[in-house]
Amino acid sequence: MALLPEVKSHYGRLKMYIDGEWFDSESGVYRETTNPATGEPIAEYPIALPEEVNRAVEAAEKAFEEWKEMELRRRIQYIYRLREKFEEHFDELARILVQDHGRTIEEARGSIRRSIENIESACAMAYTVAKGEHVDQIARNIDETLVYEPLGVFAIITPYNIPVHAWSSFVPYALALGCTVVVSPATACPVISNWIFKVMEEVGFPPGVANLVYGGREINKTLVSHPSVQGVGFIGSTRVGRELYKLVGELGKRASINAGAKNHVVVMPDADLDVVVPRLLRAFYGMTGQRCLGSDVLIAIGDVYEELKRRFVEASARMKLGYGLDESVELGPMTTAQARQRVLDFIQKGLDEGAKLILDGRNPKLEDRYAKGYFLGPTIFDEVTPDMWIMKEESFGPVACIIRMESLDDAIDLINNNTYYGHSASIFTTNINYARDFRRKVNVGNVGINVAIAQPYAFFPLGSRKASFFGGAHSRIDTLRLFTDVKIIVSWRY
Amino acid sequence: MALLPEVKSHYGRLKMYIDGEWFDSESGVYRETTNPATGEPIAEYPIALPEEVNRAVEAAEKAFEEWKEMELRRRIQYIYRLREKFEEHFDELARILVQDHGRTIEEARGSIRRSIENIESACAMAYTVAKGEHVDQIARNIDETLVYEPLGVFAIITPYNIPVHAWSSFVPYALALGCTVVVSPATACPVISNWIFKVMEEVGFPPGVANLVYGGREINKTLVSHPSVQGVGFIGSTRVGRELYKLVGELGKRASINAGAKNHVVVMPDADLDVVVPRLLRAFYGMTGQRCLGSDVLIAIGDVYEELKRRFVEASARMKLGYGLDESVELGPMTTAQARQRVLDFIQKGLDEGAKLILDGRNPKLEDRYAKGYFLGPTIFDEVTPDMWIMKEESFGPVACIIRMESLDDAIDLINNNTYYGHSASIFTTNINYARDFRRKVNVGNVGINVAIAQPYAFFPLGSRKASFFGGAHSRIDTLRLFTDVKIIVSWRY
Amino acid sequence: MALLPEVKSHYGRLKMYIDGEWFDSESGVYRETTNPATGEPIAEYPIALPEEVNRAVEAAEKAFEEWKEMELRRRIQYIYRLREKFEEHFDELARILVQDHGRTIEEARGSIRRSIENIESACAMAYTVAKGEHVDQIARNIDETLVYEPLGVFAIITPYNIPVHAWSSFVPYALALGCTVVVSPATACPVISNWIFKVMEEVGFPPGVANLVYGGREINKTLVSHPSVQGVGFIGSTRVGRELYKLVGELGKRASINAGAKNHVVVMPDADLDVVVPRLLRAFYGMTGQRCLGSDVLIAIGDVYEELKRRFVEASARMKLGYGLDESVELGPMTTAQARQRVLDFIQKGLDEGAKLILDGRNPKLEDRYAKGYFLGPTIFDEVTPDMWIMKEESFGPVACIIRMESLDDAIDLINNNTYYGHSASIFTTNINYARDFRRKVNVGNVGINVAIAQPYAFFPLGSRKASFFGGAHSRIDTLRLFTDVKIIVSWRY
Amino acid sequence: MALLPEVKSHYGRLKMYIDGEWFDSESGVYRETTNPATGEPIAEYPIALPEEVNRAVEAAEKAFEEWKEMELRRRIQYIYRLREKFEEHFDELARILVQDHGRTIEEARGSIRRSIENIESACAMAYTVAKGEHVDQIARNIDETLVYEPLGVFAIITPYNIPVHAWSSFVPYALALGCTVVVSPATACPVISNWIFKVMEEVGFPPGVANLVYGGREINKTLVSHPSVQGVGFIGSTRVGRELYKLVGELGKRASINAGAKNHVVVMPDADLDVVVPRLLRAFYGMTGQRCLGSDVLIAIGDVYEELKRRFVEASARMKLGYGLDESVELGPMTTAQARQRVLDFIQKGLDEGAKLILDGRNPKLEDRYAKGYFLGPTIFDEVTPDMWIMKEESFGPVACIIRMESLDDAIDLINNNTYYGHSASIFTTNINYARDFRRKVNVGNVGINVAIAQPYAFFPLGSRKASFFGGAHSRIDTLRLFTDVKIIVSWRY
Repeated sequence: MALLPEVKSHYGRLKMYIDGEWFDSESGVYRETTNPATGEPIAEYPIALPEEVNRAVEAAEKAFEEWKEMELRRRIQYIYRLREKFEEHFDELARILVQDHGRTIEEARGSIRRSIENIESACAMAYTVAKGEHVDQIARNIDETLVYEPLGVFAIITPYNIPVHAWSSFVPYALALGCTVVVSPATACPVISNWIFKVMEEVGFPPGVANLVYGGREINKTLVSHPSVQGVGFIGSTRVGRELYKLVGELGKRASINAGAKNHVVVMPDADLDVVVPRLLRAFYGMTGQRCLGSDVLIAIGDVYEELKRRFVEASARMKLGYGLDESVELGPMTTAQARQRVLDFIQKGLDEGAKLILDGRNPKLEDRYAKGYFLGPTIFDEVTPDMWIMKEESFGPVACIIRMESLDDAIDLINNNTYYGHSASIFTTNINYARDFRRKVNVGNVGINVAIAQPYAFFPLGSRKASFFGGAHSRIDTLRLFTDVKIIVSWRY
Repeated sequence: MALLPEVKSHYGRLKMYIDGEWFDSESGVYRETTNPATGEPIAEYPIALPEEVNRAVEAAEKAFEEWKEMELRRRIQYIYRLREKFEEHFDELARILVQDHGRTIEEARGSIRRSIENIESACAMAYTVAKGEHVDQIARNIDETLVYEPLGVFAIITPYNIPVHAWSSFVPYALALGCTVVVSPATACPVISNWIFKVMEEVGFPPGVANLVYGGREINKTLVSHPSVQGVGFIGSTRVGRELYKLVGELGKRASINAGAKNHVVVMPDADLDVVVPRLLRAFYGMTGQRCLGSDVLIAIGDVYEELKRRFVEASARMKLGYGLDESVELGPMTTAQARQRVLDFIQKGLDEGAKLILDGRNPKLEDRYAKGYFLGPTIFDEVTPDMWIMKEESFGPVACIIRMESLDDAIDLINNNTYYGHSASIFTTNINYARDFRRKVNVGNVGINVAIAQPYAFFPLGSRKASFFGGAHSRIDTLRLFTDVKIIVSWRY
Repeated sequence: MALLPEVKSHYGRLKMYIDGEWFDSESGVYRETTNPATGEPIAEYPIALPEEVNRAVEAAEKAFEEWKEMELRRRIQYIYRLREKFEEHFDELARILVQDHGRTIEEARGSIRRSIENIESACAMAYTVAKGEHVDQIARNIDETLVYEPLGVFAIITPYNIPVHAWSSFVPYALALGCTVVVSPATACPVISNWIFKVMEEVGFPPGVANLVYGGREINKTLVSHPSVQGVGFIGSTRVGRELYKLVGELGKRASINAGAKNHVVVMPDADLDVVVPRLLRAFYGMTGQRCLGSDVLIAIGDVYEELKRRFVEASARMKLGYGLDESVELGPMTTAQARQRVLDFIQKGLDEGAKLILDGRNPKLEDRYAKGYFLGPTIFDEVTPDMWIMKEESFGPVACIIRMESLDDAIDLINNNTYYGHSASIFTTNINYARDFRRKVNVGNVGINVAIAQPYAFFPLGSRKASFFGGAHSRIDTLRLFTDVKIIVSWRY
Repeated sequence: MALLPEVKSHYGRLKMYIDGEWFDSESGVYRETTNPATGEPIAEYPIALPEEVNRAVEAAEKAFEEWKEMELRRRIQYIYRLREKFEEHFDELARILVQDHGRTIEEARGSIRRSIENIESACAMAYTVAKGEHVDQIARNIDETLVYEPLGVFAIITPYNIPVHAWSSFVPYALALGCTVVVSPATACPVISNWIFKVMEEVGFPPGVANLVYGGREINKTLVSHPSVQGVGFIGSTRVGRELYKLVGELGKRASINAGAKNHVVVMPDADLDVVVPRLLRAFYGMTGQRCLGSDVLIAIGDVYEELKRRFVEASARMKLGYGLDESVELGPMTTAQARQRVLDFIQKGLDEGAKLILDGRNPKLEDRYAKGYFLGPTIFDEVTPDMWIMKEESFGPVACIIRMESLDDAIDLINNNTYYGHSASIFTTNINYARDFRRKVNVGNVGINVAIAQPYAFFPLGSRKASFFGGAHSRIDTLRLFTDVKIIVSWRY
């Protein structure tokens, strides 16, 4: 079985990137990161000192003065070159993403493609959506103009599960709009985050425009609290997100906090299961369940329940696990041993609550060379009830709960009231009225109609509500409202 | 001297308006409010019990279910009728506003007109700006739709200085977009807030759509903390605004916190003082200085200083004080005795710091019948230095500081760095390059070019930055981002 | 049987309205117009002299100079007052519309309501959609601003079938945007057009802003050819529209030419006929078929044909004819004797071609007092084939053709290729995939899904294609592109 | 003196590009085209047969079926690749443009850069501006959606003076929006047009999406008249444009006809001539005057006249003529001998009318090897009067008229009333009020403030009015209104 080549087997000690230079942290604290398919170490990353974080912010602040004044046409050319560099390094980025994170190569390619679309969307936004407004003679001899001005330095905090896509959901937009950034990636995938900055370095951004620090939660408070930081773009858990939103409230700053989820898929009796089942596999097990848009609960309406359950279990059981650089693999490992353990705990909790495990992925069979990998197979709970904890919280692993309900209204009620999240929900039906009722009534940010992963394309914001989102602006094209503020000019001709 | 007639001489005990009904608070706690021109009591207002506040929220929450589902065409007709009712009651509203708040009748008329424009802007927004988006075939057989959905109940907290305009900066927009509200007005102007709800009652909104509670800061925390309240629209001081933003951060809610200001006016040597001076009077003394867009510091560039000072002092000294219902009056009283005292303290502070009082409005001459009114005349400090407290904080009264600086760059530096506010700044010049440099470089939300009060019209947001604003959405037409959230629908044809 | 009261029994000699004054044409040529329910004369209207038309244009041109310069806030207040006046005269306008045109009172009320929505939409557009754009620092020290400027005088030519709605699709927008107009209504409904101008007069528009001339096609070429006329908004037949578009091409002017239609309704086998049939009645017979969005051909897919035909014929046969001022009447008369004759000719043509008349409305029974009215009852052809002339051209009367086809693709092929029109098409189905395929594949401007009359609301343009539309801007909110042109300002700071 | 290398010395017989293939015209009619700097032949181009034009349209029509259905994300990737290919071939395109057209290499580089910006703007538009709209629950259970659908095949007719920029003002937008094109370039610059298609071929567009035919005016009527052609994008002379607009009117099609110009520059007494004069040189002589935005008339207000004239003449006289591939050259030749002759005729006309030639560029000195080139030097007329023909019509060569006027109002009056064009006008002033009055009052599409060439960037439309423009949509980002039409979908949930 041929694997795609790894870019390197070990990436050494990762450096931080501040003010256009790479350098080692003076903290001396380095931690190891592993390839989740093998458990082998692939790099070490530093924990930044507070003063290093501050230096990054100050570099960004200094760079901001010229970057914001740079003419739009010229600034956008950097973003276009960023797109070209991502195309040029496409394969390499995808392979490192697999090596660092664990997903399949196809999933990795999808992530890089989505990230390129974010870069494109940032260019488009800067040319069109970010245009200001002007009204002449609004009152006698008075004209008014509105411009969007970049606010300054932003902290961008990315999660381990989508290290590239999360970066791309904020950074290209911030830069296109004239802001500068300090990126603090989650420490579980430090290699790919490093590589993104190597690509950015090739683009030749002015020093300080984009900076990279390592340390994760240990340094994020320092970063966000720096008085020059105007706000934060965050993707991560609800618990951490809430803390951050509180901090931001105290500091009087801005935030786009994208947090956890508990996503439901409803299958109506009229749905075609030949279409439904393959789409469910990607939704429940894609990125091994480590995905804010991944599905958690499968709701079968009425008698479709038995047939749907049978086919979903069968198809799930057939999925091929392994190292994502093997093109034939359908399910990669969890990203870290801890992430795997949390899912095992989740499963145990379900068993303790009395749910029935009808597909058990806890001890998947794998080739010997992956014996130390953090693998979990598709896992399905039946006989769940709404009051169970596993029906309310996310597993963030390849775990599905299946439940039968009698009506669409019951399902909508469960989606809206059984969890405090509000990220996404999907329905499979060919009935136009079911589809309308569902999309209007579910209180979530993203709705899928015959699509299980309700992921909007880059030039739409990613919706999100309730405990899945805190802040005034969503990610992507909506970041115009995060990174800039309006200035209104009132002119009187006398 | 003929005054316009007061609508009533005393308005009795004001009631609260909850779920479409008027009723007395069961708290039994009532406080007196006075006509600021005479010091005479004109009404009593209650301090609501927490359970009354909660009842208001619950009424709003219940009303939300039908209000959000109401077809757009029908819902907007309520807002159009609201506009008609405001036109119908125009004079009466203006006169009560004078009686309750103290401004001149011309200023009151301006406020009602601006409020009507907000109502119009809310209608316009609902028909156009609030349109969702749709892209067909974004991917193979996949379409995407974005809709703006109303979020639910909002707390609207209005200040004593602009009780109608602040109401109009949020409430018509919230209602047009399908949200419901609980309004908690500042207690210094309870009568006009009451009257607005009488007008709204005439419109015939469904019960619970808009509710009124009294109690000010004593009840606002209860209101904002109610779990059904989705967020808050606030206009008031920076101190209270910061507390509120912190609370909102803890609660994970949304906010548009419009706070204090320290506004500068720069006069370049090329400016025509015949034009400048009359505009300065309105800017520094309009609404007796109780205005977030009111001017605080007059910066004369170079040799224009002496002439400008002389003419500004002369014109200021000539302003006629009195009861605003007298059409000839140019300056009304402060709204409350406390507000007057705070300005006196501010002036004393300036004297203590060594500033020179070249126009002293502390003991203005008035007719006997206004002897107990809360009057202050135009007051001007000269010989101020940037480090003085009075050059950093707002007086919120008819107090000007005048300072000479040598260059536009110096002035911009003062504006950007000598105060932590970022609300507005103006320049008087006929030079196109000065104007561009000024508008681009000042770090404030609203910029005036040859206009001292840089107040945008309703269908622009009111800009604001730094300690003058906290949140993700500005008031007025920008409240689309406060009151609604996006939902993105991804549909796959199979 | 009680009728609503007529506003007047005879309106005398109608005057023209030019430069803010009413006056008689000096042509001396007057023609009679009748109440279509009774055939009785209700007014006389003049045929304007060319010099009178020119005078109207010159008045409009003169008025344009001040109207375009009027501050936006003030100009829009006229449009708001226009809305109020329409509300105030709502009943009276509806009744005159019935008397002049023949429709039912409910249809007339719908038209006035739609017209008010156009007025509202014009206000909304002026405040939001008509905002210009501004980009700062697009190149080094260069800013760009785009404004929409009104172009001048426009000719508005309205048809006899929707005299109010057509007026409202152009005039409020033109005025809101700063243009001035000369309206030339079709001569078959001159009374209601006159009344609209009486309402406008009450609003108090400055003289010359809106002018009314009579004469129809005899004067339209004169009007459009006047060098001061910038373009034309037209609703009428394809034949006249094409001529006009050709003239406009020769003259180098602008146009929005909204022309004829041949509209299809497809009923899929899964549709619920209890829902479908009542909606079909309004679609095929509403305004007695004199409606560009009215349906012409009913396509039944597969076996639903027999049942659908039976129920449609039965329901059609039961419709109550009579004078529209009788609230119980469901179908009014044709507007003129000629219009009625054209429909009779259409029916005869169908018979000659071999189509089978399964419901014959040519000689409906009516009370004696309506014996001279221009009535026609619902008429249905079966056994039609695509090659028949009646399947390609519009009847503009209450005539339906029903045809069975075997697949949705066949139906779409007929809609796209059997007629040169491209106005609207509808489908009845509950299947989400049928609905998507239909809306994407039919080459028409307006698509109905389970709605037979695919009429968008005012703040959407009315779509239209192929021989149903000529020009660069549609009516309503799209008229921004008709009445204004962009000006781009490039400013360089040196 | 070193020249940049020519790409080839002779390009042979140019082929046409139809349905993804290159081939010779069967007409057998070939014409020669020359290098304007030397008069040497550099290629031959064919005159297409009508059936070849038709074949191109039919290829485009066939390609349209799939191209319009292609998912947006995928279609836009072609346009991104087009941008990359333009970057890759940047130098080569610039050099061929010099060789074929005659401008300086710097001017050529500017044109290619502007063209790349159009490609970028097309991508941005497709992602943002071309989004449709959606409103839920507009009426009870009724939703409405608006989509922009591509219309089909468009004829793109480009002029000899801006063969690349004109192509880029239409083609990338048409393709991005899902339309297909047949391009008919002016025959004076056939080589560069050919090269653009070679670049497009490298991108790998599906066959038929973009087609190239030669023949210019001889074939354009055939092209536009083909029933499958939906409309035309044209840049060229007013005379030809008018004919085309008339044809389009007869045919009932769409058009964006961008025609001639007579552009004025006003210099106010307060302007800094050190800034003004260098900008005037580019404005009057850039592209040897062959530019729709090029300046024609220099209006000096008051006493600045003498000094401005002196300095303008001196600077003009110093310009270096020669072959554009010489980097030191400031002024290239006219494109063709005929174009040169037309300018000579224009100059003669001016002399005949009594204007005074104060700088005569008719017989410029050049090196021998350019003796057969079509050179003209800067030419300036003084003592002109508004009634002269040369003050009303464009020279389309390096010819300036200078005139003194006493006030800004006089200048505006001349600009608005002395010519029937309405393309652009500029003012040099530092006075904010002059600038506002000028930009508001001049009746042209593009206004320059301290910039002589008022050329908006790609993501603004190019404004234009009166006899300078005919149609409903401008070029560039405004072509959304040319290439697509709205479809409105009304859905009723029952």
